[in-house]
Amino acid sequence: MNTEEILSLPVALPDGVDYDDYLIATYLASFAAVWPIPVLAEALAIEQSTGTWVAVPGETPEVRCQHVAKVIGVYEAPDYEFEVPQSLETRNWIIQVAYPEVNIGEQLPMLLTTVVGNISMGGNIKLLDVRFPKKFVAGFKGPKFGIAGIRKLLKIPKRPLLNNMIKPCTGYTLEVGAELFRKAALGGCDIIKDDELIADASFNSIKGRVKRYMEIEKQVYEETGEHTLYTVNITDKIPKVFQNAKRAVELGCNALMINYLAVGLPVMQALAEDPKINVPILAHMDVAGALYMSPLHGVSSHLVLGKLPRLAGADVVVIPAPYGKAPVIPDKFRNVAKNLTFPLYHLKPTFPMPSGGITPSMVTQVITDLGTDIVIGSGGGIHAHPQGPIAGGKAFRQAIDAVMQGIPLEEYAKDHAELDIALKEWSDPFGKGVAAR
Amino acid sequence: MNTEEILSLPVALPDGVDYDDYLIATYLASFAAVWPIPVLAEALAIEQSTGTWVAVPGETPEVRCQHVAKVIGVYEAPDYEFEVPQSLETRNWIIQVAYPEVNIGEQLPMLLTTVVGNISMGGNIKLLDVRFPKKFVAGFKGPKFGIAGIRKLLKIPKRPLLNNMIKPCTGYTLEVGAELFRKAALGGCDIIKDDELIADASFNSIKGRVKRYMEIEKQVYEETGEHTLYTVNITDKIPKVFQNAKRAVELGCNALMINYLAVGLPVMQALAEDPKINVPILAHMDVAGALYMSPLHGVSSHLVLGKLPRLAGADVVVIPAPYGKAPVIPDKFRNVAKNLTFPLYHLKPTFPMPSGGITPSMVTQVITDLGTDIVIGSGGGIHAHPQGPIAGGKAFRQAIDAVMQGIPLEEYAKDHAELDIALKEWSDPFGKGVAAR
Repeated sequence: MNTEEILSLPVALPDGVDYDDYLIATYLASFAAVWPIPVLAEALAIEQSTGTWVAVPGETPEVRCQHVAKVIGVYEAPDYEFEVPQSLETRNWIIQVAYPEVNIGEQLPMLLTTVVGNISMGGNIKLLDVRFPKKFVAGFKGPKFGIAGIRKLLKIPKRPLLNNMIKPCTGYTLEVGAELFRKAALGGCDIIKDDELIADASFNSIKGRVKRYMEIEKQVYEETGEHTLYTVNITDKIPKVFQNAKRAVELGCNALMINYLAVGLPVMQALAEDPKINVPILAHMDVAGALYMSPLHGVSSHLVLGKLPRLAGADVVVIPAPYGKAPVIPDKFRNVAKNLTFPLYHLKPTFPMPSGGITPSMVTQVITDLGTDIVIGSGGGIHAHPQGPIAGGKAFRQAIDAVMQGIPLEEYAKDHAELDIALKEWSDPFGKGVAAR
Repeated sequence: MNTEEILSLPVALPDGVDYDDYLIATYLASFAAVWPIPVLAEALAIEQSTGTWVAVPGETPEVRCQHVAKVIGVYEAPDYEFEVPQSLETRNWIIQVAYPEVNIGEQLPMLLTTVVGNISMGGNIKLLDVRFPKKFVAGFKGPKFGIAGIRKLLKIPKRPLLNNMIKPCTGYTLEVGAELFRKAALGGCDIIKDDELIADASFNSIKGRVKRYMEIEKQVYEETGEHTLYTVNITDKIPKVFQNAKRAVELGCNALMINYLAVGLPVMQALAEDPKINVPILAHMDVAGALYMSPLHGVSSHLVLGKLPRLAGADVVVIPAPYGKAPVIPDKFRNVAKNLTFPLYHLKPTFPMPSGGITPSMVTQVITDLGTDIVIGSGGGIHAHPQGPIAGGKAFRQAIDAVMQGIPLEEYAKDHAELDIALKEWSDPFGKGVAAR
């Protein structure tokens, strides 16, 4: 067979086929108007499964029948019907390709190789979505705790959880960190995490932090009756990342944190599926923008921050919030959270943790946007409270309580001094119009 | 201290400082003309080291002194001096930030978290380069074999090596693959690799391929006196990827292949630094475009395909070539190869393996561009030779011999039939003007 003959083979997936045998990937292709995208889409599907740019002897009809990827949709936006404007320089296409599940198996690396892979170098092409069949997802355990499991650990059935990230980000000693931990815990933070910029540092070790912080956790619990999860950042090379995790759990740490894209999704999955790692995993988002920020390349945010870390077993995923310092389109933000929580076969829902410059004044808005099954992440918004971190934590808890009781923050602040001060200090710190309501 | 006071602290790195204490990262920032980038650059440097968007109590002068990242250069392109044109909508800046090495340690995950990390979500910001101090690189073993080591294994001191990737990419049986392997080896391919789309598949296992292909390798060696490295694709989830590697080596495989970005750089580093994995590692580039293709986001190609896999110990890295099916700017291509081979402390040079639609007609050009210390990768250009894969391999070897002897391909083809046929079949298959010379 020559190239023309191969391209002329029917590659469309007939209606009535067993969709459980396929993963459906959706791409944006933005190309110069001269390119014949509907034909090239089929070439792409062949290239990412059985074939290459030229017919080769081993690519028999039998091989193609079972293993070729199939173009099941090519849609132009806008959808020109009677004439393509001559002035058009670029045409935008949405392409859907069905990949045989058997080509990939139930694993993330070969998934990425197949649906992102060499396609990522083919021009202006962005992966917008992947729909996973049951057979594929069956190979993943997903979050060990998820939203319900973490709520059960903390005995907090309904309200949003409060997370504090210790600031400064790095460079501080154990004793400085311990004081910040104590204050954040006393202030009512349900989860306290390391910043992503500190892990097992020469000047501040994981072992030191776990031992000291967990002692403080017990002391604070005696005082307040509230538990705090400490997510220690175990990010490291292999095998040290696994040793860090094991040692942290042995030392009594009640949660872990990992920079999941910096170490790779397979590392997080291995931890999440290890029965000895019997604590929740908080997944930090750093590096994600390198994959999703371009409108024309890479992989959409709801995959990078949503479906993929959920498949890999994250119990909490930190996501950039549109209220603070990160530039984020609110619809994209909500879509990430949705992908962490919607029904996905047997996988438990993962907690979205909006983060990045969040202050108590934004609590109403974040709950309006995402609901109450969230972890609200704040670093500076707690530690830099004018009355200190304990008051900073209390201000957030008061804001959460107000929203849960349906009371406007300004109203609730009248007899809650910490919240009152926070609202006045940061009514709209980033000028984005997110104010107390 | 308030934000203004913190921002007013001197963060520039004074001349005469010990550069071995810092990693120098270079960024492109492309922002709306209204943004005060020189001030924001310092905020970024603080955010990625000790601080956050607001001053926090733990960020003492001592912490800042030792751990804050320092902006050491902010350059606008063009470099406006007396007036910024009012019509300007976007301004482009090159920013250099020195990160204290002690913040990161000698590991890739915390490197990525620090230099890409949350910055990647900050707008139109792309990481263009990282210069590594000796202290950092000292923590890496780099390639175990490198160019010289692989040349020694194969007893080929000077000429470019020839690699064949078995096509079809996936979906074929062991026996189909074995025949293609045999023919490619008989044709003179020095390295034969799996396609990135097949690893330990349910229909074609690693164990089966290694046993069968290595038997054939021995038979072909008896016949031709030339050895062939078989790089079996061990890509998989953790810990299976490590089990795959160990088993492949135990079964006698003489090389490994890994989709290094799909599994994550730390996996490849762990394999490369494991003394039991005493064979070369070929690193496949798939997924790379998701990181480097955007001109405004992500990470430049010479890091993704060059310095980073070299640090992580790749002996060969597959890179997209500008002659074939991938869109690549030739200068970028040459820069990737340069970053794989230039002096980098104690790290051995890594073989660049240009690939993607290469045919014998392009051999002169690829050697002109990159020199002779390369692996030339061809899949379809060997298997689809009109006289079959053995002739396909021979045509490439003849083209390599011709260039090594300084004889134009057309001339050499006069008494080398396989080359002659290949040149006629594919004089310029992608219309890029790369012809036989």
